[in-house]
This record gives sequence, structure tokens and C-alpha cells, in this order.
Amino acid sequence: MTDTTVLVLGFEPFDKAPLNPAWEVARRLDGKTIDAARIVGVQLPCVFGKALEALDAALQQHQPSLVIALGLAGGRTAMSIERVAINVDDARIADNAGQQPVDVAVATDGPAAYFARLPIKQAVAAMRAAGVPAEVSNTAGTFVCNHVFYGLMHRLNTVPAWAQTRGGFVHVPYLPEMAAALPGAPSMAVETQCKGIEALIAAVLRHDPEQQDLQLSAGQLH
Amino acid sequence: MTDTTVLVLGFEPFDKAPLNPAWEVARRLDGKTIDAARIVGVQLPCVFGKALEALDAALQQHQPSLVIALGLAGGRTAMSIERVAINVDDARIADNAGQQPVDVAVATDGPAAYFARLPIKQAVAAMRAAGVPAEVSNTAGTFVCNHVFYGLMHRLNTVPAWAQTRGGFVHVPYLPEMAAALPGAPSMAVETQCKGIEALIAAVLRHDPEQQDLQLSAGQLH
Amino acid sequence: MTDTTVLVLGFEPFDKAPLNPAWEVARRLDGKTIDAARIVGVQLPCVFGKALEALDAALQQHQPSLVIALGLAGGRTAMSIERVAINVDDARIADNAGQQPVDVAVATDGPAAYFARLPIKQAVAAMRAAGVPAEVSNTAGTFVCNHVFYGLMHRLNTVPAWAQTRGGFVHVPYLPEMAAALPGAPSMAVETQCKGIEALIAAVLRHDPEQQDLQLSAGQLH
Amino acid sequence: MTDTTVLVLGFEPFDKAPLNPAWEVARRLDGKTIDAARIVGVQLPCVFGKALEALDAALQQHQPSLVIALGLAGGRTAMSIERVAINVDDARIADNAGQQPVDVAVATDGPAAYFARLPIKQAVAAMRAAGVPAEVSNTAGTFVCNHVFYGLMHRLNTVPAWAQTRGGFVHVPYLPEMAAALPGAPSMAVETQCKGIEALIAAVLRHDPEQQDLQLSAGQLH
Repeated sequence: MTDTTVLVLGFEPFDKAPLNPAWEVARRLDGKTIDAARIVGVQLPCVFGKALEALDAALQQHQPSLVIALGLAGGRTAMSIERVAINVDDARIADNAGQQPVDVAVATDGPAAYFARLPIKQAVAAMRAAGVPAEVSNTAGTFVCNHVFYGLMHRLNTVPAWAQTRGGFVHVPYLPEMAAALPGAPSMAVETQCKGIEALIAAVLRHDPEQQDLQLSAGQLH
Repeated sequence: MTDTTVLVLGFEPFDKAPLNPAWEVARRLDGKTIDAARIVGVQLPCVFGKALEALDAALQQHQPSLVIALGLAGGRTAMSIERVAINVDDARIADNAGQQPVDVAVATDGPAAYFARLPIKQAVAAMRAAGVPAEVSNTAGTFVCNHVFYGLMHRLNTVPAWAQTRGGFVHVPYLPEMAAALPGAPSMAVETQCKGIEALIAAVLRHDPEQQDLQLSAGQLH
Repeated sequence: MTDTTVLVLGFEPFDKAPLNPAWEVARRLDGKTIDAARIVGVQLPCVFGKALEALDAALQQHQPSLVIALGLAGGRTAMSIERVAINVDDARIADNAGQQPVDVAVATDGPAAYFARLPIKQAVAAMRAAGVPAEVSNTAGTFVCNHVFYGLMHRLNTVPAWAQTRGGFVHVPYLPEMAAALPGAPSMAVETQCKGIEALIAAVLRHDPEQQDLQLSAGQLH
Repeated sequence: MTDTTVLVLGFEPFDKAPLNPAWEVARRLDGKTIDAARIVGVQLPCVFGKALEALDAALQQHQPSLVIALGLAGGRTAMSIERVAINVDDARIADNAGQQPVDVAVATDGPAAYFARLPIKQAVAAMRAAGVPAEVSNTAGTFVCNHVFYGLMHRLNTVPAWAQTRGGFVHVPYLPEMAAALPGAPSMAVETQCKGIEALIAAVLRHDPEQQDLQLSAGQLH
């Protein structure tokens, strides 16, 4: 396992925010070692299309065994491990290049959705055990986050080189210093967020992909 | 169009609630006519598996051109037109037969997800124009509602007889008389709910399936 | 009791909204009779100061035994019977005359607060029994609603003519036709809101002011 | 200023929770110095009546110039500086001694409410400038938190010895390790909470009580 690489992707700031916790976490984890796996943090542009080009470049360069993409979910209270990526872009606001696609497929030849290739229940349990608020989410939205999540899973499922690579997406809350200017918004300290992602990575690395995930009820009624 | 049938499915009460707005709406619309289409309201059991048997029986008996399934989403404020059904049952509570599946596929041979076969944006716009709070939702949860929604779309996509049949799922809020016993819960009068579903049905019937949906941004950032 | 008058005050629209449920309820109840009491609906301007002048005029003209003032609380899910009015104006937005006072007393000679002169628990219980979502609220905010509520209670407590007059304030949710343009906002049909206020008025009229209120826990932890 | 003492009161755990962030903050600040003022942290029992006896003992022993009482507000996202304490106990749950008073006065001879004796706007601005989510709240609820807040302000306003003592109440969010077991609950790291209270104390100590508070709009519409 000495040559295992974990790629942690974090978006640049968007929607006029001064920073993005996704990148703040990714850059803090960059260079760390978890269970003999080396973490590489890479920034993604918050731009439809360009973000997937950056993803391709990072996959080629780092040849990771595990890819965790991170994005901001302003208004959520917990680290959200996404269960499913859907094949649609439907942007409520413009991306960082001014694009605002409505009901466009991420991949015209792709299926409606892909599930994360992660033991999501094991990961949630590990994060909670580490004292970090965490949940399974059944929607990653329809903006650049879901776009990258779907694009990642499309590559892992269609490119033979990545057939064994695991991957998924985690939405993270605002940082306190962002929420200080956004009355009512929930937040989470960057240290807590990093602790959560480290717990998730360790849980995934220890999980045998041949085994089924933890049988933990973490669904939603609606 | 004189022999067009619209099937409106509504669940029976569950989780100890005395009534279910989904069925209250379906039974009020039963027998009505919208643009020469006849509405048939049918109740579904809130039971994994059995609900799909009831769906099959209703499809056989009524041979509908359009199927709208309704389910309660306690805590939501608006009528939610669901965009996508996912291939997983993950029950947070037991169904009406005491079953509580965790991470089981709805259809072992099915894809990860199906999109609704409805002009969802046109429908949202029509409901709002009728004065009814409405939104597009990107998750129908992982309980019996999503189970029926996925089962419905699986049938429409795999059974030749239903290849032209349109269908989808709408989550509805609590009724005021239910929320009166649930401090803090949002609600919507049954009259408003019925008006919303009638506006949706009219919008779908008037929409040419060959044409694309209204280009209305109604996505979510996350 | 044949000459009992109940004054129901409702604000005009504000903050660019096309209508205000408070006034929609007040004008629908105007002229009705509840338990031999006659209801008079009067509109208030949403203007600091002027609203209290309109209140004074209405008190003089109608000589009510009971005064219920209604205001919109956009975002609340239930009819909220306010427990306490506080002696401060702190406006987050401008009123209809462009005024935006910050930390100014409603009455410079008044105490910090007044409690409603209503059996608020009896009223909540009656509204719920009528199938209307209702709750006790411990804050009426710091805008024109609280201004009128405090002004009303200051008059009932300091003007001998009103020493026996009961009064209080109820915050009401958006109407569905307003929420249709405000994604995510909870709402309540005007018919449900009217039913709630009628139940409240009946409960107050039947309650002997010499008796204590219903011992119903309806407080908040914070 | 070398003999200035700041009393920081924090409740013990309640409602079966394993810890209480209010006390976690108070005990971490105990012994610290801010602008030459010495901080003393004292724990309060979460019991109606007994909490005020503990308050009296602490006031006698420490003779503080400033008293900040802290309590948990599970579900709030920000540090909430309370504006007003009201003269009522209305408990939704039992306190740590099994008491659950409904609509009982905190002080039978007291007014309906007291305002905090703090520059609350200056404090909010200072906390936000320190990167800590903070807000003014217009209700401290009706449980033991409001009971202690009202009791504190009643003493500061009626006991000559405390005529110059400033004081108020701050509600704090869950800790992340608590929220990890409470899906959906917002939280804040204890380090962030401590930073917020330190910023508040510094802001109050630097504020001349003869001067008016910062003219910052921080009210609520309802």
C-alpha cells in the first residue's frame, strides 16, 4: 500500500465568496499520509466543462486509488456524503465563467445516474465516531458539484484504467468566518471538516471493496 | 382525446398518521375530467413490494396515458415535482408491513436511476401560475415513495405497452389538520393541493411529448 | 353580550408584497358575528407611529371589548399567538414611509415589555382543535408588528377606559399565492387562517378573565 | 482596571446530553485575562430556583463588574446575544430536578421583562469581526436559561450593590461532537465559541456605559 495515492479535489471560491471550504480542506490535507496512503490536494475551477478537464489532468498525473471530490453546500449543517450523481446540469446561478446551463446532460451518452463507489455508510459511521456531524445525502444538486461528481463516476465506470478506482463526493458546510457575514447560516470549523475527511479516507482505505457496505439505515423518507 | 385516462395514485396513511394527503387528493380528483381526460384515483399500500403489485394492477385495469403518483413529504412547504427516481430502498422507519430494507435495489436488473417522463418545468410553472407553491425536487428519498416512483419508471421504460405513457411523482406537504398536532410543521390545504395537481395534469396533457420542456432554471446548488 | 365588539386589525401590504394575509383575514371577518359579538375589521398602515394613530382612532370609534391585531410573519408555518411585546423598534427594512428606526423605544415612558392580555394557551388549544396549526411565540420581532402590539398593550394598561379590554397579537403565515413566487416559503390558505382567528376569538370570549389560563406547556427551551 | 472580575456562568448538562457547551466554554475561559480583567467561570445547575441560588453565591463571592451567562440553544446556528429576559417560566421539558413549571413568574414582584445591560450591537459586531457567527436574539425562551437571565437582570436592577454591574445572556450552539449524534443539528466548535465570548467580553469592557450602543440594525421582522 506504500504507493497508494488519494486524490482530494476542492473547488475554488464561487458566487462572490472570498474562499471555499472545499479547497481549504483539500489544501490542508495535501501532502498528508493516512494509513500509508499519500494525499494529494488539487483545486478545481468552478466552471462547467473546465472542471472535468482539470479532473482528467489530475487523474492522469496522480493515478489515484481513491478520489474524493469536495464542494460547498451553503446551508447544510453536516458533512454530506453523496449517494448518487445525476446526468443533468440545471444551474440556478452562473458558474465562474458566466455559464448557466438549464437541463443539459453532463454526458450525452451516459446513464441517468451513477452511485458513488464508496462504502458510504461505513464512512458516515467513521466520521460520526470521530465526533464530526455527517450524513448521507441523496442529492448533490444540479450545479458544478453534481457535474464533477457525475463526470468522475462516468470516468470510473467507462475508462478501463479506473475500473478499480474508488471515488465519491462530499458536500461541506460554510466556514464560521463565512457564516459570520451570513446571518442564520450554519457552519463548521475547517479543523472539524479536515478531521471528517481524514476519518472518511481511513474508513474507505480499510474497507475491502469485495465486502458489502455497513448495514446502517441512513435514508430519507423523502 | 376522449378516451384518455389519467391515473392518480395516492398512498394510504403510514407512520401512525390518521390520514395521508396523497390519498386525500387522489380520491377528490377521482372521476373528474380535465381537458376531456378522465381522472382515476387509486390508493396504494405503503408497503415495499405490495405497492408495486397494486401499481401493476392499476396500470392493467385503467390503461392510462399519464400516471401521477403522490406521496407525503412531511416537512416540505411546497408541492415537489420529483425529477429522478433512484434504484435503492433505504428505510429510516418500517413500512406498513413492518419491513425496513437497507440499501436494497428496487429492481436488481435496473439502472441506477430514471428521470421522470414529464415536462417538469412546464408543470412547476403551471402550478405557480395557479397560485400553488411548487418546486422541482432532485430527490424523492429512499422510502416507499421513491420505490413506487422507480418502479413506475422502470415499467414505463421496459414494458412495450407503456412506451408512450407519461408518468412521474409529486411529493405533497402535510394537511393543516395534521400539522395542528405537529408544532412547527408546514402544511397546505387539501383544496390548494388539488388545484396544484389539476394544474399539473392540464399542463402535461397540453404539452407535446415531441417538444422539449420549458427552459426554466429550477435546479439546486446542492 | 349583544353589544360586544371585537376589533380585528390587519396591516396593509409592505416590503413590495402585493397583498398581506393579515388584512385579507381582517376584511373577511369584518361584519361577522361570533357568539353574539360583532367583528369589525380595520386596516393599519405599515408605518411606525402612524399605525398607532390608526389604532387610537379605531379604539375610539369602535369601543371594543377585545382587540386582535394581525401581522404577517413570512417564513413561519403556524398561526403564532404572541406572548409578549417589547419596548423597542429595531427595523431590518424600511417601513412603508421609508423609516428604519434602530433601537428606539416605542414608548419612552413605558416598561420593557407587556404580556398579552389574552388566555393564549386556551386560544392555541382551540385553534389546534379546529384543525389549524397554531403555536405560542415568545417574540413578535422588533418591526411594526411588535410596535403595534406594544402600543396596544401600553394603551390597555395605561388608559382607564381600556382597563377591562382584552387584546393581543397574532402573526400569520404567507398565503399560498404569495409563496408560489417565493420558493421554499411555507404558507397557509386564507380560509384556514380565518378559521384559526375565529376559533381564537370564540375561545377568548368564552374565557372568564377572572380565571387563570389553561395550564398547557407551550414554551420554548430557547 | 486591575481588579476587574468578569463572571462567566455556564450550565451543567441537561436533557440527557453528555455535556453542555455553555459550561465547556465557561471552564475554558476560567482564569484567563482579557484587557486586565480576570475571568471566573462558574457552573450553574440546570434547575429552576437552585440556579438562582448559585448565581447569588457567585455574585457574592466574586463581586464581578460584568456577568455573562451562557446556555445551550440546540438548533441555533450562531452565538445569540439575548436582548430581553421575560418574567415567565414555561417548561417544555423537565429540569434536572424534575420540575416543569407552566406559566409561573420568575419573580412575582418583577416587571414583565428586563433588557440586557450590555452594548449588544457592539458585541455582535465584535464577534462577527472575529470571524464568529453571531446574532441578536429577541427571545431567550421560557426554560432555565431565561429564568437565570431574568433573575440576573432582576438582581442587577434591584440590588444597590449591583447597580453598576453589567450583564447579559448568550445562547450557544451544540458542539460538533454532540451534533454528530443528532442528524441535521447545526453546531460550532468550542474554540470558535470561546473566541466569540472573548470578543464579546473585550467589546463590553471597552465600551463606555455612558455612551449609547452601536447603531447597527439587527432586529427581526417577526
